[in-house]
Amino acid sequence: MGTPFQGMIQDLKGRSQYYKHDWSFAASSGLSILAPTFYIFFASALPVIAFGEQLSRETDGSLSTVETLASTAICGIIHSIFGGQPLLILGVAEPTVIMYTYLFNFCKNTPQLGAKLFLAWAGWVCIWTALLLVLLAIFNACTIISRFTRVASELFGMLITVLFFQEAIKGLIAEFRTPENEDPSAKQFRFQWRYTNGLLAIIFAYGLLVTALKSRKARTWRYGTGWLRGFVADYGAPLMVVFWTAVSYMPPDRLPEGVPRRLLCPLPWEPASLYHWTVVKDMGKVPFVYILAAIIPALMIAGLYFFDHSVASKMAQQKEFNLQKPSAYHYDIFLLGIMTLICGLLGLPPSNGVLPQSPMHTKSLAVLRRRLMRKRVVKSAKECVRLQRTRSELYGKIQAVFIEMDAAPTVKEMETLKKAVMKPDSKDGAKDNLDVVKNIDEYIPVRVNEQRVTNLMQSLLVGVSMLSISVIKMIPTSVLWGYFAYMAIDSLPGNQFWERILLLFITPSRRYKILEGSHASFVEKLPFKTIAAFTGLQLAYFLICFGVTWIPVGGILFPLPFFLLIILRERLLPRLFIHSHLQELDASEYEEAIGAPHGDHTVPLLEKDSDGGESEDDYDAEILDEMTTNRGELKLRTISFHRKHRGGGAGEDRNFQVSPEDASRT
Amino acid sequence: MGTPFQGMIQDLKGRSQYYKHDWSFAASSGLSILAPTFYIFFASALPVIAFGEQLSRETDGSLSTVETLASTAICGIIHSIFGGQPLLILGVAEPTVIMYTYLFNFCKNTPQLGAKLFLAWAGWVCIWTALLLVLLAIFNACTIISRFTRVASELFGMLITVLFFQEAIKGLIAEFRTPENEDPSAKQFRFQWRYTNGLLAIIFAYGLLVTALKSRKARTWRYGTGWLRGFVADYGAPLMVVFWTAVSYMPPDRLPEGVPRRLLCPLPWEPASLYHWTVVKDMGKVPFVYILAAIIPALMIAGLYFFDHSVASKMAQQKEFNLQKPSAYHYDIFLLGIMTLICGLLGLPPSNGVLPQSPMHTKSLAVLRRRLMRKRVVKSAKECVRLQRTRSELYGKIQAVFIEMDAAPTVKEMETLKKAVMKPDSKDGAKDNLDVVKNIDEYIPVRVNEQRVTNLMQSLLVGVSMLSISVIKMIPTSVLWGYFAYMAIDSLPGNQFWERILLLFITPSRRYKILEGSHASFVEKLPFKTIAAFTGLQLAYFLICFGVTWIPVGGILFPLPFFLLIILRERLLPRLFIHSHLQELDASEYEEAIGAPHGDHTVPLLEKDSDGGESEDDYDAEILDEMTTNRGELKLRTISFHRKHRGGGAGEDRNFQVSPEDASRT
Repeated sequence: MGTPFQGMIQDLKGRSQYYKHDWSFAASSGLSILAPTFYIFFASALPVIAFGEQLSRETDGSLSTVETLASTAICGIIHSIFGGQPLLILGVAEPTVIMYTYLFNFCKNTPQLGAKLFLAWAGWVCIWTALLLVLLAIFNACTIISRFTRVASELFGMLITVLFFQEAIKGLIAEFRTPENEDPSAKQFRFQWRYTNGLLAIIFAYGLLVTALKSRKARTWRYGTGWLRGFVADYGAPLMVVFWTAVSYMPPDRLPEGVPRRLLCPLPWEPASLYHWTVVKDMGKVPFVYILAAIIPALMIAGLYFFDHSVASKMAQQKEFNLQKPSAYHYDIFLLGIMTLICGLLGLPPSNGVLPQSPMHTKSLAVLRRRLMRKRVVKSAKECVRLQRTRSELYGKIQAVFIEMDAAPTVKEMETLKKAVMKPDSKDGAKDNLDVVKNIDEYIPVRVNEQRVTNLMQSLLVGVSMLSISVIKMIPTSVLWGYFAYMAIDSLPGNQFWERILLLFITPSRRYKILEGSHASFVEKLPFKTIAAFTGLQLAYFLICFGVTWIPVGGILFPLPFFLLIILRERLLPRLFIHSHLQELDASEYEEAIGAPHGDHTVPLLEKDSDGGESEDDYDAEILDEMTTNRGELKLRTISFHRKHRGGGAGEDRNFQVSPEDASRT
Repeated sequence: MGTPFQGMIQDLKGRSQYYKHDWSFAASSGLSILAPTFYIFFASALPVIAFGEQLSRETDGSLSTVETLASTAICGIIHSIFGGQPLLILGVAEPTVIMYTYLFNFCKNTPQLGAKLFLAWAGWVCIWTALLLVLLAIFNACTIISRFTRVASELFGMLITVLFFQEAIKGLIAEFRTPENEDPSAKQFRFQWRYTNGLLAIIFAYGLLVTALKSRKARTWRYGTGWLRGFVADYGAPLMVVFWTAVSYMPPDRLPEGVPRRLLCPLPWEPASLYHWTVVKDMGKVPFVYILAAIIPALMIAGLYFFDHSVASKMAQQKEFNLQKPSAYHYDIFLLGIMTLICGLLGLPPSNGVLPQSPMHTKSLAVLRRRLMRKRVVKSAKECVRLQRTRSELYGKIQAVFIEMDAAPTVKEMETLKKAVMKPDSKDGAKDNLDVVKNIDEYIPVRVNEQRVTNLMQSLLVGVSMLSISVIKMIPTSVLWGYFAYMAIDSLPGNQFWERILLLFITPSRRYKILEGSHASFVEKLPFKTIAAFTGLQLAYFLICFGVTWIPVGGILFPLPFFLLIILRERLLPRLFIHSHLQELDASEYEEAIGAPHGDHTVPLLEKDSDGGESEDDYDAEILDEMTTNRGELKLRTISFHRKHRGGGAGEDRNFQVSPEDASRT
């Protein structure tokens, strides 16, 4: 574990030398920095609004969208200025909402506390949580984060997915019922209007789900210009929320007010919202026993935050992004403790690092950097072509641009570029040089615009959006239920646990279809029985985890099975499975074999160039989309085992499909 | 044109020598004949029910589902016993419904006729139509059917598609309104319940559309056993109608009766239905002028029927089905005239040959025959393997089976088989012989179970289903509107006109995506500008055709532009386009280039064999599915031009994508 404070000191040393650069570098990008800012703002604000509505239902309105937005804005601003890794995005997330729901129910059922002292008691929970987080940071606990393997993180992801679905279904059913605390004799709660409201809810929720899922894939559409497709793909979900909100105003005026139902939340300057500024005063009223008891939920929350925050940070800093600045895991956990304390005292639900927004943030900054670099490289390369310079001069120019742009290319990267530029098969000098320019795209190294401005600005935007709560209130609740379902479905692809569950249901004669597409390498390398046994075990464990969340008060212990998993993974699993199998199924990276039909990406690019009609900007995002899972993990593309094995040309490969038996035998 | 009666006599001579065999051959297939019977019954009964409902709305209930079912049953029985080509399926189709709608509106607006004499006047129209059809048959008009080229038939298909959509939308809007002839003060027509009814209609119609479209693709699903997938694919639409009808009984009892609205039609033994038996008596009441005027709609209907019936018949007898028995186009048109006369006198809407059911019928009989043949071949081949016979003995055995089973293989087919069986690379005799058995499947020639029993039985089933009108009446109307939308969307793929329209909207840089998949050969061979000009012209002409249907009474002339098209195609188009281009765009067959990623189908089959878990039956249907368009046309798969051009191995091909420029240049 090392000596106390060691990790934090190292983090601070590492980041402080870049602190000034973090600000100045952003300035050099100019206005183009706005694109990732808005992208990440919409990606993080929408779930926060949805979680606010969920929290408002579960806590009888004690907390609502105002508080979740406030927490996200405050923590985001603090983190972007004082945080270690500015690529990490913060926000109120589903685990927080679930925990706060348990806390509220506990208070409501405990006469000494009551719903009135809920926020005060939650304040005490936050104090304990903050203390625990600070201790974890001091004692360098982040070194153990690697023990949370893929299995644990996917189980947790699956639990969140199922809880999202549960929320969507619960929400939809509620649309057919009279809400609690409402007058059942009001016109809009009479049977016929409740029923109408329910039917409208089904249409809006399903409509949002389908259109949001479709628009997410917009980049691969055949129709529409590249700009439009990119826009729809980047802002699909928020655009569709706006669209369906507009549709929800279409039903005739003869419907009574309140059909369809819309978001219920007080404005930030209304008394209901203002109360949370004075929570500190109430904290003294909490009986001492309950102040002590608050340590139990605090243990769970601290564990969850420690895990979630570190994983989100890790995902934002994956090796393949080639980050140039150091990480700051220990210090960021310390800061998370401080922010949790602040939120607790202000009566706000705390924020932590969120998925998939954090890797999305890095990804969008990589796209930005790539565009800027290409623009410069192509410009100077074209000049070389115009002046009929030789190949080595061209290479020198490109190298100079890379160094000038601070990309610090590695030796290997430069060698690949050199090989590509200097390749011997040049017959027609000028024409060939042009070809080089066209292909240069592949050799631009992946670099990320590492700075603090996008994070700060998106947090400020979240803060500003609190002023427009009256606009946000126009969203029908049913659209949010659809959005919960969207978040659930959207998080499934790329979750290997889910893909393995599906694999169990595929009839043996159809398994070759998996191998035809892109797929994780375990499908080829492991016997089917091993996969089935492992997945069955994981599924059983998952059902236990999900079952725990249903226990009325004990449900608060739901993170326990996940912590337990570390021990099970280290002690039990190695006895049940062969080491190499376990490594394959529980690899720390998402490893994906290239399926036969997915060729390389050179040709469409070339074609686009020769076509000239379309901007290339859009293409970068498309490549990065394909390279990452929906969770934001980068896929490690390995050459398919069978392809390697056969050794023959791709020609033999194309018509070659593997039977699972075949795969297991080898 | 030849001498009068020549065609009919030839048809009768040709078919009469097979007439006995048509019946006896069916008996030899045993109970397995039931599968295609039920398949084609559901495929033809459901649209007839939907058209009945449409007709009932458009004619204020003068005609309804009872009459469309009766006409389909009567004509089907007559045709299956006395018809020339028993593969042809008859039914009341959309053109008939549209024509009858115009006839009804004309009567309603003509004081001398009125809605009361509608069926009597329609009877006169049928008499004229019958006369014209008989004349067309006598004078061998079927020889000119080849002048209706692809362009005409696709324009017509597109018009039907758009009319289906129009009907779906009109139907859905009507669900929000109080129907004509109903008491607007009834509880279920009050605003709130009309609105509820409309919302339910949206949910049911959309639900049917989506689930029916998904289930149609069931054969390619990854999940579920082969039998289940085949069942869902074959009976998808009727299954989903049953499913959504069941769902429509889920809304609570507190909804007033009549929400959701269900099919309105009298039972066959109620007075409203019995009237049509006595239509003949009213025919004398029609004023003489209107008897004469009936010749105008009769000209249109005769033209439509002549065209539709012949095309459906042609589609059912495509060359690739390798039919062994002769066609009977002339005689079938004659019989169609007789049947139209009968329907007219009975006050029923006439039936004619329908698409896509007719080729579906042939296809299902080809699958049946194939299964029977394979069973025998594999059995005798396995015996050879067991007895360690030589290759030539094996070949002899297989040949004997083919001849015994009446398949009359051609010389070429036998040579391919011989080559496959006797191929020289045999090292291990016994194991190799087994391989031959596995591969034999590819060399079984396509043959169709040509007989009259399936057609007769499905017609009888349609007749029997009239007794269950009280069950049919449980279907919500909204489910039928969804079914209209399903029929519309389902008819689009494979319509080259539609595919060319889509092509116009694809951004140039994305056109390579078309070439990656399977595609018609014109995409590769013609310059884009030519395709665009031709499609634009066709689109403009289509809009004229569609516009004509909107003219209140003159709309009855809507088939005219299609007849005109023959002249335009022969005189005008050759002046605007190069001959070879025109031939490519207006080819009589659907020609499809094999896209690179679609490999051959040997491997999945092999795999299934080695797997042993799944029945092979399902596979035949899947191959035939892939070989035909949704309209039932067989695709002529040509080797992609570029593949041929490159000449290299497939290996080079896989990563090779063609730019449209490239394609147009060559």
